[in-house]
Amino acid sequence: MKREEREWIYGVNPVIEALLSGREVEEIFISSSRRERLETILKKAKIRNIRVRIEDKEFFDSKFPKGHQGVAALIRKREYITLEDMLDIPSKEGEDAFFVILDCIEDPRNVGAIVRTAEAVGVHGIIMQAYRSAGIGPEMVKTSAGAIEHIPISIVPNIKKAIKLMKERNILVIGAEAGSNPAPWDIDLSGPVGVVVGSEGKGLRRTVKENCDIIISIPMKGRINSLNVSVATGILLFEILRQKMLKFKKL
Amino acid sequence: MKREEREWIYGVNPVIEALLSGREVEEIFISSSRRERLETILKKAKIRNIRVRIEDKEFFDSKFPKGHQGVAALIRKREYITLEDMLDIPSKEGEDAFFVILDCIEDPRNVGAIVRTAEAVGVHGIIMQAYRSAGIGPEMVKTSAGAIEHIPISIVPNIKKAIKLMKERNILVIGAEAGSNPAPWDIDLSGPVGVVVGSEGKGLRRTVKENCDIIISIPMKGRINSLNVSVATGILLFEILRQKMLKFKKL
Repeated sequence: MKREEREWIYGVNPVIEALLSGREVEEIFISSSRRERLETILKKAKIRNIRVRIEDKEFFDSKFPKGHQGVAALIRKREYITLEDMLDIPSKEGEDAFFVILDCIEDPRNVGAIVRTAEAVGVHGIIMQAYRSAGIGPEMVKTSAGAIEHIPISIVPNIKKAIKLMKERNILVIGAEAGSNPAPWDIDLSGPVGVVVGSEGKGLRRTVKENCDIIISIPMKGRINSLNVSVATGILLFEILRQKMLKFKKL
Repeated sequence: MKREEREWIYGVNPVIEALLSGREVEEIFISSSRRERLETILKKAKIRNIRVRIEDKEFFDSKFPKGHQGVAALIRKREYITLEDMLDIPSKEGEDAFFVILDCIEDPRNVGAIVRTAEAVGVHGIIMQAYRSAGIGPEMVKTSAGAIEHIPISIVPNIKKAIKLMKERNILVIGAEAGSNPAPWDIDLSGPVGVVVGSEGKGLRRTVKENCDIIISIPMKGRINSLNVSVATGILLFEILRQKMLKFKKL
């Protein structure tokens, strides 16, 4: 693989997931102190004939942030799908559209946690803006617990355009932000839906908000009255799943 | 303050919350590079006559993990309330009990995120086991976004005993774990309820599980099928809030 074709991931789960996903893995790095605990990875690497290099703890500490767990891999860069291809997924699967749109979320750990949750709840894809967002780096792959390998991601230059395309396809686009808007459970979210989540500090950008069909807020009763963006997204996505399951039961 | 009476916290929000909470603050540390952005803290410190020390970046980098934001404070150690006092809170407030019990959650960031969510949803208190849990350190205070200052916390030697005490008070104790148990929205959780959440890797301990009234699982549709424990707890707690609000509406 050429230098520009590959990227780093790190952490036990992300490396295992990358090995399971079928993406080309050039090389795996394992800390000498961790060797015994990494049997699973070693076995899978052997089967797929991937070179394994043992490096000392300093190699990892200097290259990656805390939490690298003494495992890393050089793998082929992720390929993204086009927005149009992503929007075609639900009808191919015979399901109501279920998308997540991230508006400038900056903390890669939050994006990773949202990806993990979105994959678990069964969304068809995640749309991120190319600028002003956390890029998909090793930290995001790690906090996604490997889920990022299994969910289509589309990087678009402008999410407002993506929102418009969704609305043309009769997808209800809901924006989520702190405040006193209707609660998610007071709105029918059981049909085709796209959920737009804003950044930690600033919420949705004004122009993004104006493009949404409706703005909802998670009701809160405390004094701090703010939720981590990945927790808030989880609450919202699983409320949608609840409504979908309820509708299915009633059919 | 004597050395054993004080503890470190760090991060802009936690320090501001500590200043707002009325807890005794001995000293505040501010990184020279951050000074201008910390006007709020400086003002409040001045009003309360608290000493402020400027230290260089190295001071913070050596003392705290990434994310310290160049702010720290030495404050009086938190006081915990007894389990009995905590169990008396709901009736004093004329509300149905709403508690969270943490069974050996190890990552302080996850505990901090759960505390933040629990405070936002309006639980009456959080019960943690003294052993095998993340202690309340600066990292937890920081990820709680300061919420830890506003929610009663009880540290108990044995959460099984706490669960038994709750059941004696007719609190429905539900355990949450991954699996194919009933979904939270298929159970009536609108009355007095205690939610037990297990550790990231291992879930609930067997003996804790046996003491719960019911075990529930969040349904999942993906391939990874696991949620971050703080996201899962958020989904569950806000499902309970949804049910409570629905019941209130019907009354």
